[in-house]
Amino acid sequence: MRASQLFAPTLKETPAEAEVISHQLLLRAGFIRKAAAGIYTFLPLGWRVLKKIEGIVREEMDRAGAQELVLPILQPAEVWQESGRWDLYGEEMFRLKDRHGRPFCLGPTHEEIITALIRSEVNSYKQLPLLLYQIQNKYRDERRPRFGLLRGREFIMKDLYSFDRDEAGLEESYRKMYTAYSNVFRRCGLKFRAVEADTGAIGGNFSHEFMVLAETGEARVVFCPSCDYAANVEIAQSIPQPIETPEKELPLKKVATPGKRTVEDVCAYLGVIPQRLIKTLFYEADGQLVAALVRGDRELNEVKLQNALGCWKLKLAEPERVKEALGVSVGYVGPVGLNDIPIYADLEIPYLVNAVAGANVDDYHWVNVNPERDFVPAKVVDLREVGAGEPCPQCGQPLEGARGIEVGQIFKLGTKYSKALGATYLDETGRERPIVMGCYGIGISRTMAAAVEQYHDEKGIIWPISIAPYQVVVIPVSIKDPLLREEAEKLYEELKAEGVEAVLDDRDERAGVKFVEADLIGYPLRLTLGNKTLSQGTVDWKWRGSQEEQAVPREGLARRVKEAIQRALQELDSPSP
Amino acid sequence: MRASQLFAPTLKETPAEAEVISHQLLLRAGFIRKAAAGIYTFLPLGWRVLKKIEGIVREEMDRAGAQELVLPILQPAEVWQESGRWDLYGEEMFRLKDRHGRPFCLGPTHEEIITALIRSEVNSYKQLPLLLYQIQNKYRDERRPRFGLLRGREFIMKDLYSFDRDEAGLEESYRKMYTAYSNVFRRCGLKFRAVEADTGAIGGNFSHEFMVLAETGEARVVFCPSCDYAANVEIAQSIPQPIETPEKELPLKKVATPGKRTVEDVCAYLGVIPQRLIKTLFYEADGQLVAALVRGDRELNEVKLQNALGCWKLKLAEPERVKEALGVSVGYVGPVGLNDIPIYADLEIPYLVNAVAGANVDDYHWVNVNPERDFVPAKVVDLREVGAGEPCPQCGQPLEGARGIEVGQIFKLGTKYSKALGATYLDETGRERPIVMGCYGIGISRTMAAAVEQYHDEKGIIWPISIAPYQVVVIPVSIKDPLLREEAEKLYEELKAEGVEAVLDDRDERAGVKFVEADLIGYPLRLTLGNKTLSQGTVDWKWRGSQEEQAVPREGLARRVKEAIQRALQELDSPSP
Repeated sequence: MRASQLFAPTLKETPAEAEVISHQLLLRAGFIRKAAAGIYTFLPLGWRVLKKIEGIVREEMDRAGAQELVLPILQPAEVWQESGRWDLYGEEMFRLKDRHGRPFCLGPTHEEIITALIRSEVNSYKQLPLLLYQIQNKYRDERRPRFGLLRGREFIMKDLYSFDRDEAGLEESYRKMYTAYSNVFRRCGLKFRAVEADTGAIGGNFSHEFMVLAETGEARVVFCPSCDYAANVEIAQSIPQPIETPEKELPLKKVATPGKRTVEDVCAYLGVIPQRLIKTLFYEADGQLVAALVRGDRELNEVKLQNALGCWKLKLAEPERVKEALGVSVGYVGPVGLNDIPIYADLEIPYLVNAVAGANVDDYHWVNVNPERDFVPAKVVDLREVGAGEPCPQCGQPLEGARGIEVGQIFKLGTKYSKALGATYLDETGRERPIVMGCYGIGISRTMAAAVEQYHDEKGIIWPISIAPYQVVVIPVSIKDPLLREEAEKLYEELKAEGVEAVLDDRDERAGVKFVEADLIGYPLRLTLGNKTLSQGTVDWKWRGSQEEQAVPREGLARRVKEAIQRALQELDSPSP
Repeated sequence: MRASQLFAPTLKETPAEAEVISHQLLLRAGFIRKAAAGIYTFLPLGWRVLKKIEGIVREEMDRAGAQELVLPILQPAEVWQESGRWDLYGEEMFRLKDRHGRPFCLGPTHEEIITALIRSEVNSYKQLPLLLYQIQNKYRDERRPRFGLLRGREFIMKDLYSFDRDEAGLEESYRKMYTAYSNVFRRCGLKFRAVEADTGAIGGNFSHEFMVLAETGEARVVFCPSCDYAANVEIAQSIPQPIETPEKELPLKKVATPGKRTVEDVCAYLGVIPQRLIKTLFYEADGQLVAALVRGDRELNEVKLQNALGCWKLKLAEPERVKEALGVSVGYVGPVGLNDIPIYADLEIPYLVNAVAGANVDDYHWVNVNPERDFVPAKVVDLREVGAGEPCPQCGQPLEGARGIEVGQIFKLGTKYSKALGATYLDETGRERPIVMGCYGIGISRTMAAAVEQYHDEKGIIWPISIAPYQVVVIPVSIKDPLLREEAEKLYEELKAEGVEAVLDDRDERAGVKFVEADLIGYPLRLTLGNKTLSQGTVDWKWRGSQEEQAVPREGLARRVKEAIQRALQELDSPSP
């Protein structure tokens, strides 16, 4: 491709709306443009990156024995009503009616539509297992689309669904996909981790997320450097860390704490450590008020609470709602005397002796609160968020923490959808059994953004070679010099003949402008032709990720470029031992 | 691919809803399944055909210098309001609101969204010309989706947009696309014609449709066997064919024609030929009543009438509306005495002398009606539909007629959208000028169906080699025979090693069942392994489109298969001289 013809409009200024680096750089370097909030056009460079990622995904899915198909984006409400998710999905689902008034949605995911297909087409154990996938647009009406491709409303996903006879088959499909996903992200050149994860609105009972590690990631993960344990903090299992409490239980006592609302203030005022305070939070779980308790030094994890409650919607109760129910401000709430409101206590709470808690009266706290004696939790359950440094639940070594961008997630669904939609098969004995399912997603456009979050510097993007829009840019320092122009054209043609994906920057621009743009766009390899070097029979070779530039012989250059690219690709292609 | 693993559920019965052969066969052979009215899932075989067609389209677009991108499906109303088409598009457009109540549509086409993009990104003549395309779903809420993939509500299209400095540039882009489209359909193995066409709702002033010729086609075309004239009958230019009329004008006379409402009945009753009757039809053009006249032996073409009127909506007026306006039944209407209703007369009408027409009084007709004397048309214009046998407007030779399926259309848009949305550029002199546009569509999923309409027999589909889901099926007559099984596996592996796309029918089914299914699916080449032939060192070779089966040597077979496929592909690839 000639730069003079490439439609890649770059921007000098960073658009104000772009908060994260991938959004900024993909806009500035001419990969994407916004069409509406959370909705993007992929310009030719962006399109090429998408196709590269899709190509890798397709190869790995096919290698795992999967077959590609295309399911509809526009989906009739009926199948969603059968699964019960038409009502549950809420405002995140784009809904519309056709000219006859029949309700449809834009598929946010495809469990229902593919289960309905399989219900009609599969009836015998002989047809199983099946792995079916598609690569297509998905739709989620995010309340606040932001971060460019990281949280859009229209985005590109690969979604695969597995259909097995039994749990053992599902285990096998899940294992295949775990391997395929690891291959995909490794081949994309990404530093990633597979972590245990929550199953969320998709449902099912077991899940892993594939996280691209990046400081800007929205997700927090913990992993053990000693064993293979790794989990999203949303579900990372906590080991209770009781504090030393040699005291005997003392009588409950109400003390005035005027104006002391926060853990910090109350502890300072009463002279206790935060570990001895009970933090009480009120939530609305499907509209019902519940209380959740963690120690004063801990953070509550809402995903754990939601899973413990088994509710569909969970939100922190508004202070007004709490005031109305208990007649107290949220700074003074506590578990003592909550008669009709169920209490969910973290695993560490029962270890507390003579703790401090709000008295449910403004400006007062209880001291010497003792669980079981002074209040009875409905459930004692893991509710707190695990932090770095805590012991690994598998081996006890200190966990490390990291931030990540979720680019893939795999789920064991079991029979949730097959039972709801009646997708069954007849086994060898003629018995009708529900098909056992799994689902497996990769955010294609998200992976593109995650790669930029992971690989960039102050000059621009540094694409991994496997997903770069082009592999090489050829820059003659001046296009007006006939010799340089001719030599650049010749090298460009030789590269193309070798199958190298090259851009020739044939524009009449200063060399400095071309370098800046090449760095911004992030071509992995830059070959610069100048008069001086050329007269010495060399060309300047520079990898985008390296500071070094070296003169290499012009003779046989195209072949050596090809070999260097192949080596780089092979390196990504071979799994770590 | 092994047939035992391929997800291609075939049907024994033809689904009742499938009216046309492509719909029937694509369902029966397991290429598609219906998800909702006009909305289909493409199963793995269907997906492969789509990808083959897309691959050919992509190669030809790139060869013409076009660049691929991806535009959003979900489009904000604003850009459609700027072009004025938000209101004009009517019920065919799927519309929805996001959670904040902002209106969107599902793109039926992308002129607006890409013009808005170009408006922001192009400002200099140096950036032109540009050819940009995408391959993506499109949405049209058809009142009555039917004929499977031929008239769906969700379908796959390639749409390309050209941006030029001036009309000469547009002419060049249009010519490139005309050639590229011819290459695409030829390489898909289709018998097609490019015909002059109406521009419809897209607008613009010049257009060609690419028609796959098939008896079941909805469109009628005429073409000249002697010159290059070819046109959709919707716009095919008519040459008036006046009848001999030696008479002098006679006085207008009202005659009773009780119960005679049709051309046939009136002519028989009055003893005149249909060529001497004026057929009067009332239409509502954007709500206004107009009268349209053609000779009694002619059919009026509504597209021509609409273009003559320049209206957005045209429909035949209800008899009640006519009765209300004129106090007469539609069987007795005529042009004489229509004061406030404009009359559009076909080119042949002025040649009539002493014609017959309805008297606008029930049970009466006028005789000796003479145009200009007895009524004055608002406009005399080509309104009638041209039929086979009429003279070619270019060379006068008799035209031939055919039916076709429109699989592509190319348009010169001019400045319609660039002016409406303000997409301009600065020319060499610094003057601001509107960008001159063209647009060019190919129905990818429609082409798949059109190929089936053109290539099938009573047994099933006969895929052209270039778009077949797989090129070869290998059938061992029994899979239980270890020798046959082993030999079939060996041949299958050899074919794969040669890069041939092969299916091995390794299922434990009778040979007859496998043959029937192979014919239904339409694999271009069938290789059958039987014990007898194998002991003689041969395999049975049969092309799907041929009746002959011949024994060919097993030795070196895979290589010969590859060569035969390459020859067949090359034949499609080379333009006819």
